Amino acid sequence: MTKSLFPFAALLALAAPAQAQDEAAPPSPGEIVAQAPAAEWTTIAPEDLLVMTLASAPDGTAREVVIQLMPAPFSQGWVGNIRTLARTEWYDGTAVNRVQDNYVVQWGDPNYDNPEAGGEAKAVPANLAAVPENEYSARLDEPAIAKIRTYFETTASRVAPSDPTTLYRADPYARAHAFFDGWPIAMTDDEPVAWPVHCYGMVGVGRGYSPDTGSGAELYTVIGHAPRHLDRNIALVGRVVEGMEHLSSLPRGSGALGFYTAGEADKRTPIVSVRVASDLPDSERPAFEYLSTEGETFARYADARANRRDPFFIYPAGGADICNIPVPVRRVAD
Amino acid sequence: MTKSLFPFAALLALAAPAQAQDEAAPPSPGEIVAQAPAAEWTTIAPEDLLVMTLASAPDGTAREVVIQLMPAPFSQGWVGNIRTLARTEWYDGTAVNRVQDNYVVQWGDPNYDNPEAGGEAKAVPANLAAVPENEYSARLDEPAIAKIRTYFETTASRVAPSDPTTLYRADPYARAHAFFDGWPIAMTDDEPVAWPVHCYGMVGVGRGYSPDTGSGAELYTVIGHAPRHLDRNIALVGRVVEGMEHLSSLPRGSGALGFYTAGEADKRTPIVSVRVASDLPDSERPAFEYLSTEGETFARYADARANRRDPFFIYPAGGADICNIPVPVRRVAD
Repeated sequence: MTKSLFPFAALLALAAPAQAQDEAAPPSPGEIVAQAPAAEWTTIAPEDLLVMTLASAPDGTAREVVIQLMPAPFSQGWVGNIRTLARTEWYDGTAVNRVQDNYVVQWGDPNYDNPEAGGEAKAVPANLAAVPENEYSARLDEPAIAKIRTYFETTASRVAPSDPTTLYRADPYARAHAFFDGWPIAMTDDEPVAWPVHCYGMVGVGRGYSPDTGSGAELYTVIGHAPRHLDRNIALVGRVVEGMEHLSSLPRGSGALGFYTAGEADKRTPIVSVRVASDLPDSERPAFEYLSTEGETFARYADARANRRDPFFIYPAGGADICNIPVPVRRVAD
Repeated sequence: MTKSLFPFAALLALAAPAQAQDEAAPPSPGEIVAQAPAAEWTTIAPEDLLVMTLASAPDGTAREVVIQLMPAPFSQGWVGNIRTLARTEWYDGTAVNRVQDNYVVQWGDPNYDNPEAGGEAKAVPANLAAVPENEYSARLDEPAIAKIRTYFETTASRVAPSDPTTLYRADPYARAHAFFDGWPIAMTDDEPVAWPVHCYGMVGVGRGYSPDTGSGAELYTVIGHAPRHLDRNIALVGRVVEGMEHLSSLPRGSGALGFYTAGEADKRTPIVSVRVASDLPDSERPAFEYLSTEGETFARYADARANRRDPFFIYPAGGADICNIPVPVRRVAD
């Protein structure tokens, strides 16, 4: 048996922190986040933000979606392609071409991977990388492993089921999971290999049958229950951090897999533009920050998600799956 | 330590069934369901189906939502109230009043539990039951326990993580979970107590702060990642079996918790009528059936959801959470 890199068992003896015995109602997860010190919020680099402008809604509502791109060590080949596609304005004039209920919204070239659309695929820039499937997961370096050990020490025991023998087995899809640099990840436990997971709002790279891994010219986001069977089968490249409702509330397609049929061309939402935020003028550049997943506030927040003590609740669950602990992200006012 | 009623450990030695070594691509979960023998489909009683007709969409699309009510032993007090409310035509003329992204769509009286709506709550029939919170879960009788044992024998070991010590610990919210009479449930393992779980499309009873448990006059359905922290905190009374897209694609509300604000009154979708299917004339009565969760096909389907072998996939997950194995339900042609 291989030596475990993440000695969960050794952490299990840690008792949960004692609750303060005051009279006030326990704070909700949102209240805990609202009290986080400024130092626990981490700025998202403008290079890691995509601004996707959709055509206005039929009632005139402007529709802007902001996506945070995945940081290293994950999926950087595809992330680079996506920056290239945005910088060559390749996405402009494409559309949302698939909306499958409780699954995904997909956009990009409507003729890619969709015979019903009946047109030719749009040529992509010649310099896109062909990323191999072994980059669906990434080997972690020592600093990353140290961060994940910190997560296990501060937070994991609070969100695990109360049975102390179960901590790292509470994920049906992986030996273990954690939060790392603001992202939910899953991992093995006998070698330092991890991968991002398909939670609500995560953004991935559409592809055909393997060994195709997709270029980044077609992207999707999760609009239903976490389809974690896709983990390590498709590249995850980011997550929607604002404007998710402009995608999740789109009309579902009636074709196979939720693609809009040729007769539903009017349902396709046009994509006006996709830009890397760092390329925008200062006045148009949005700023976002996420709650550090290595800090004390995140640990308290995750604990409160798993053990709801605020007044509405009767039975705290005593655990939560990783996709039911969304990482707080907020827009920074101008 | 109490004796376990569900001896999972004894089942863990069961090997997964050997795969047929033929050349054909392994079937997808959907293909397995399509091949189910007729005997494995179970008719849903018309008394257990609600037909909710919404006002037509702005583009003229008719919008009908069909809900299957929860069978005994779960939530029958609220289910009885809902039949009473439907039969007194109480829901008619109410509206969808809350759409919170990645959470719930809620309908009924828009003035219940929503001060922003600014109106008086609609009086409910005097004969509704006040159901206590201890009915959020139910004690199982011997026949039910026998069915759940069958599930563990035929199916559970196929959807659990590959580590044979983890079978009944792969649910972060409960000691165990199973499928029972076509429904996903969770349970303790030292006494025969179980409860339905908050998967996508499940329907529950809105309520205020406890000890209020709600009457059934306000209902919601899950439109995002399973909010299983609500299990045993709110009554689950059914699930949407057709027309889910008419609810999940509604515009999100901008008020607290996704309620439509007073200024968004035009976004509230009117409910034209809610009827129990058994009260409809034959010509209007829809018929549905579900795939028996105690049959061989469901076991194969659940296995295939947890271990995707169809050609798109590279890494079968080796497990699935209970809400990622939706029970197949289909309309029966007239």
